[in-house]
Amino acid sequence: MLVGAGPGDPELITVRGLRCLRTADVVVYDRLVSLELLDETPEGCKRIAVGKTPGRPSVGQDSINDLLVQHAQNGATVVRLKGGDPFVFGRGGEEIAACTKAGVACEVVPGISSALAVPSGVGIPLTHRGVSGAFAVVTAHRAVDHDAQRWDALAKIDTVVVLMGVGRLGSVAEKILSYGRNSDTPAAVIERGTLKEQRLVIGTLGDIADICTNEDIKPPAVVVIGEVVAVRGQLQLIAEEVDAHSSPHLAGVPEFGEPIALG
Amino acid sequence: MLVGAGPGDPELITVRGLRCLRTADVVVYDRLVSLELLDETPEGCKRIAVGKTPGRPSVGQDSINDLLVQHAQNGATVVRLKGGDPFVFGRGGEEIAACTKAGVACEVVPGISSALAVPSGVGIPLTHRGVSGAFAVVTAHRAVDHDAQRWDALAKIDTVVVLMGVGRLGSVAEKILSYGRNSDTPAAVIERGTLKEQRLVIGTLGDIADICTNEDIKPPAVVVIGEVVAVRGQLQLIAEEVDAHSSPHLAGVPEFGEPIALG
Repeated sequence: MLVGAGPGDPELITVRGLRCLRTADVVVYDRLVSLELLDETPEGCKRIAVGKTPGRPSVGQDSINDLLVQHAQNGATVVRLKGGDPFVFGRGGEEIAACTKAGVACEVVPGISSALAVPSGVGIPLTHRGVSGAFAVVTAHRAVDHDAQRWDALAKIDTVVVLMGVGRLGSVAEKILSYGRNSDTPAAVIERGTLKEQRLVIGTLGDIADICTNEDIKPPAVVVIGEVVAVRGQLQLIAEEVDAHSSPHLAGVPEFGEPIALG
Repeated sequence: MLVGAGPGDPELITVRGLRCLRTADVVVYDRLVSLELLDETPEGCKRIAVGKTPGRPSVGQDSINDLLVQHAQNGATVVRLKGGDPFVFGRGGEEIAACTKAGVACEVVPGISSALAVPSGVGIPLTHRGVSGAFAVVTAHRAVDHDAQRWDALAKIDTVVVLMGVGRLGSVAEKILSYGRNSDTPAAVIERGTLKEQRLVIGTLGDIADICTNEDIKPPAVVVIGEVVAVRGQLQLIAEEVDAHSSPHLAGVPEFGEPIALG
């Protein structure tokens, strides 16, 4: 079973996903997945970390595929737990293709993508009547793969969400600007979205990369570019009331909702 | 609390969302929300339907906003339960803005958007290495609002997901074609995605609207346009094994996973 763990907060896994975890013999999980979720697996469940940590050797995609296939062929109930949604830049398709090739059929349990939930969590709707009628999702990580056609599309669409983008935000912003987007376009970056230590910085397409550098924003972070960022001022969420940060750029939002108590 | 119910299958609500439902004094829900979820509300919980049914008078957005504010001001724990994610074409921003204006603070619990989960459920990943590095989400319902810039962007982006689109799919496809997309681009439409009665039709940008008419595909349906539709053939999901439909265009996928039995 390929299960999406959601955007960070463990309570944002689905009911079905949690149920799958509770039946697992083997769980193969990514670095960004919450440890509270692993605690939901049965006693004796084998837990295998395959996450990528920047600057350290990581388990390659082929080895992950082999792990899944081997354990499944040994008769184990295998849960492949991935951050966000397995099919949104999660290489879930490749893992299922490998399983299919080996004769192992899979179930997919979708997860909440951080692309959508992280902006929501700080009061930025990706669509808003009269402001944004379309949004696009992309990674900065693979920005080198973007051709002129894709950059042109990204410069023209109402709202752009950039995942895995904080390290390359400068060059992404520059590219979008070079394809004609206005440098005054509002932009926001949310670090560790939906978690207690979440941080939010707000600026424009022209200055957001510098703001992130100054505030030392680190991955994982979600970038939102578009007029919807300005809608946020009209929406007051409960989490925002709790916290008021002193920095003009930094508006800490402590947690998505209440403290976590699964099980 | 503004809670996303997910794409249809009630088990695809989040753990947090289910917990919110179980504390509700009042639940204000949309037509597409599953009745199994309403059964999770406490005894005595007031259930108010505000869903839009095509061709029938529906509760206007202002009345919905008033309902939420009034019940909250009376001290009730109000859950506004919306299909998918409240901030993805869900007008969630407008409802929170109304609450904020009335001094009522809200919590947002994201939901799984059908834009992402419905394609996943039939084995179409919105991103796939070497095939799709970006996707956009839009509604056909408001296609009249799309200007030249937005159509141009949609024609150029790797994968386009169209929500609320089956009735206007012909004109949407025509527009995207007129902005230069190839008519051979694979396209899929999933009716009642993630539910037992789910149906899938596959074609191209050039013929998908006619196929939908011939197969009598009805809302709610999710449209996917892009080469990722062809990736589906490489992925074998458990649900697909169960069912093999005779129609060349129709590949019924009975259910997302197992039968539903919420707590």
